[in-house]
Amino acid sequence: MDPNPGTHALPDRCDFTVFGGTGDLALRKLLPALYHRDLEGQLPADHRILGVSMSDLDDAGWRSAVRAALVEHVDPTDLYDGAVDRFLARLFHLRLDANEPGDWDRFHSLLKDRPHPEEAVRVFYLAVAPALFGAFCRRLDEIGVVDDRARVVLEKPIGHDLESAREVNDAVGQVFAEHQIFRIDHYLGKESVQNLLVTRFANTFLEPLWNSHWVDHVQITVAETVGVGGRGAYYDHAGALRDMVQNHLLQLLCLVAMEPPTYVGRETVRDEKVKVLQALRPMSPADVDTDTVRGRYEAGLVDGEPVPSYADDLGHAGSRTETFVALKTEVQNWRWAGVPFYLRTGKRMDRRVSEIVVVFKEPPHSMFPGAEGVTAPNRLHILVQPDEGMRLHLTAKEPGPGGYRLRPVSLDLSYATAFDARLPDAYERLLMDVMKGNPTLFMRRDEVEAAWTWTEPILRRWASSSERPKRYPAGTTGPTAAATLLERDGRTWQETDQ
Amino acid sequence: MDPNPGTHALPDRCDFTVFGGTGDLALRKLLPALYHRDLEGQLPADHRILGVSMSDLDDAGWRSAVRAALVEHVDPTDLYDGAVDRFLARLFHLRLDANEPGDWDRFHSLLKDRPHPEEAVRVFYLAVAPALFGAFCRRLDEIGVVDDRARVVLEKPIGHDLESAREVNDAVGQVFAEHQIFRIDHYLGKESVQNLLVTRFANTFLEPLWNSHWVDHVQITVAETVGVGGRGAYYDHAGALRDMVQNHLLQLLCLVAMEPPTYVGRETVRDEKVKVLQALRPMSPADVDTDTVRGRYEAGLVDGEPVPSYADDLGHAGSRTETFVALKTEVQNWRWAGVPFYLRTGKRMDRRVSEIVVVFKEPPHSMFPGAEGVTAPNRLHILVQPDEGMRLHLTAKEPGPGGYRLRPVSLDLSYATAFDARLPDAYERLLMDVMKGNPTLFMRRDEVEAAWTWTEPILRRWASSSERPKRYPAGTTGPTAAATLLERDGRTWQETDQ
Repeated sequence: MDPNPGTHALPDRCDFTVFGGTGDLALRKLLPALYHRDLEGQLPADHRILGVSMSDLDDAGWRSAVRAALVEHVDPTDLYDGAVDRFLARLFHLRLDANEPGDWDRFHSLLKDRPHPEEAVRVFYLAVAPALFGAFCRRLDEIGVVDDRARVVLEKPIGHDLESAREVNDAVGQVFAEHQIFRIDHYLGKESVQNLLVTRFANTFLEPLWNSHWVDHVQITVAETVGVGGRGAYYDHAGALRDMVQNHLLQLLCLVAMEPPTYVGRETVRDEKVKVLQALRPMSPADVDTDTVRGRYEAGLVDGEPVPSYADDLGHAGSRTETFVALKTEVQNWRWAGVPFYLRTGKRMDRRVSEIVVVFKEPPHSMFPGAEGVTAPNRLHILVQPDEGMRLHLTAKEPGPGGYRLRPVSLDLSYATAFDARLPDAYERLLMDVMKGNPTLFMRRDEVEAAWTWTEPILRRWASSSERPKRYPAGTTGPTAAATLLERDGRTWQETDQ
Repeated sequence: MDPNPGTHALPDRCDFTVFGGTGDLALRKLLPALYHRDLEGQLPADHRILGVSMSDLDDAGWRSAVRAALVEHVDPTDLYDGAVDRFLARLFHLRLDANEPGDWDRFHSLLKDRPHPEEAVRVFYLAVAPALFGAFCRRLDEIGVVDDRARVVLEKPIGHDLESAREVNDAVGQVFAEHQIFRIDHYLGKESVQNLLVTRFANTFLEPLWNSHWVDHVQITVAETVGVGGRGAYYDHAGALRDMVQNHLLQLLCLVAMEPPTYVGRETVRDEKVKVLQALRPMSPADVDTDTVRGRYEAGLVDGEPVPSYADDLGHAGSRTETFVALKTEVQNWRWAGVPFYLRTGKRMDRRVSEIVVVFKEPPHSMFPGAEGVTAPNRLHILVQPDEGMRLHLTAKEPGPGGYRLRPVSLDLSYATAFDARLPDAYERLLMDVMKGNPTLFMRRDEVEAAWTWTEPILRRWASSSERPKRYPAGTTGPTAAATLLERDGRTWQETDQ
């Protein structure tokens, strides 16, 4: 296997099967992403997309559902009748009840019913309940459609703790080799996250500062304005730590903190990321008490609209699940020792924003009389969503004769304005990588398990604690304890200025 | 004396005398600058402005000439009848023939003819031929108007070599103490130049990179599109090295290269600047041959308009004076050893631009396959004119799925757009500093003489050389030898992207 795929490799000709083909993820994200890549001419001519679901749809029915989804989720300026028709012609649907062996046989027949079926790479995208991952893989194995070129794509969550994650990984691993398994985290497909590697390693100006000598601390925020909505039943068994921190936030942390790999290749970046996860300071029960904050939203106002409490969203009041987490950790290695990494995520926050902020130390000495205290430390904001970009906050001289009046200013890079091109959705990149067989941006088994290893003591301590998540009104920045977590270190959350 | 004047100190109440009060500098720069500061309420009520010249004007005549100059040189939105009238009422004119003792007596009377003349600080701005500096100071001394609060302002050039500079400094120094002497270099009053100190020293992100470990080289360009015009007689005795490099370009170099002072105070910045001048690698005759390039413009096109050659501007062809200089030097100290500083300046160039470019080294290792050679090194552009601002050039990922396609982008700070305020002219700041008695931004005697000490071997070698300046067509970037100067080091001039 080429250890280092070229930057313009073409995707393999695939039979790309989406299990859960009529579900929200498929219609909202996966099929629009595949459409965009088809529009760019990046899908080989006889590349098929197979939808598998419990729905009683024929090909035409699914195509019509997908057409409606494209109209809803694709920018109208990217919708061309000819291109949509060409795309829909790739689509085939199969109704499958996972417990019906006959249905699986029909799936097998569908895969074989094409010219040169042996030449098509089989991709199985499991957009189904994670509890089914193992069973589906076994079925695929039993019907004999898994060869050593086949690939399986798994959506999070991989397990709900270390042991269950291992069980899932074991079950999938009995059918697929590790290099065939693509555990997706769509945050890793975002342009600004990708650009973080380039910003750090294709430039000279950041890396000399990127260590405990010059960095005061790092903040990672993933805030949502939505509540749990219809996902309450799932969410109440997960909570914010499992749903967001264990995967998305720790992945972002890894990209901020990782050492430079020799090259950006299949395993090199993941090797470095897993080293970061393994270097996270383990949380003792006492650490959990002091360094983590749980919250749960109450009724409040989001964008001026009244929204219900988590208990009301859920339909009962007995839950102890957190919808907000703030925590402090540290990467215990030569580069980062002593630099706090503050993470926070929540639902029903005051705004939707994902952002990494690297806060640099103050200059060692202030030589501008009268300027003490009026300046802010330098900060690099990496904006992940809703806008993608980068902003360097620094101190400049306010124009005017007389003395030095200092003022914060920012140097901006907005992706939307700097590049003329449309920003591809994260799934476009990730699905293309699946089709090219490039797993760089996917979570390797050891990463997932290292993340659970670090997360589990927090879950355990919370489960054994009599304390409940702190309440916060919807539409705020979370419980006040989250602010206190930083204030006791003499720091504050950098509220975004997107 | 307060070693560290506060940032909002008010100017002293002055009798501000401009010798050469009807000259180009006075009408185009000094009086508009004083008007702007008056408009901002920064001139004390009984602050007078005295114009002295050979012109046979009464007060009303000079006021009328100044009113016309304000209309021409001040933005109409800053011209208010009331403010102009109030300003003009401060103005008085005296015709003075420097050889007529009676005229000097009348000048003395004018200074005394005000309420509490002993309370007004006397500022003497010598906007006259530099050859007259010594004589004027002696006259001022003789008529007894120089007390220890008086100040004298000298325009460049201070001498035409080290010896003549010493003579001027000696002559002026016999009348004024060094802290009373304000040698003006208007480049030091520019916002972007001022901001360079703030950018370097009120921020964390630059200083760790600001040394030979991370900086590949520095370029300083001061390019003009104008020719010598009516200044030919003066210019032909000076040339670009004396007229621009010895003062403006070396001053900019000092601000780029200087060590951080303890604080920004009267002497501390100048102490650091003189250290840089003293650390410049002395030029041996052989160094001059290899590391300097002289040019002289021929006829050509500037902005599409045909313009004459230097010889035609001058009216004769015998001159050997350079209108363009490019050179390479080095600051021989711990921070900068081995980092070339490339300087260039010229008349009749393709565009008017003053800019400092700090070019950083390439990252030590390229880890993006296929990206070698498509990226440019990081650069910080400090734009001095015509626009003032800052631009950080870096490498980012071009959006798109697939591999890493790298692309240069820039983070911008435009002063005009970042700050709502009008940018004050450099003279506004500098005249205010004179009136406040703050010499930080003015050249101290030892700076001027250190600059001449470094410059003189170049002048001497050129004078003894049989080579003549290389020709370049007007409207270009100078002689090709200037490009070769960098190319033989594997570098190129960063043509500005303002």
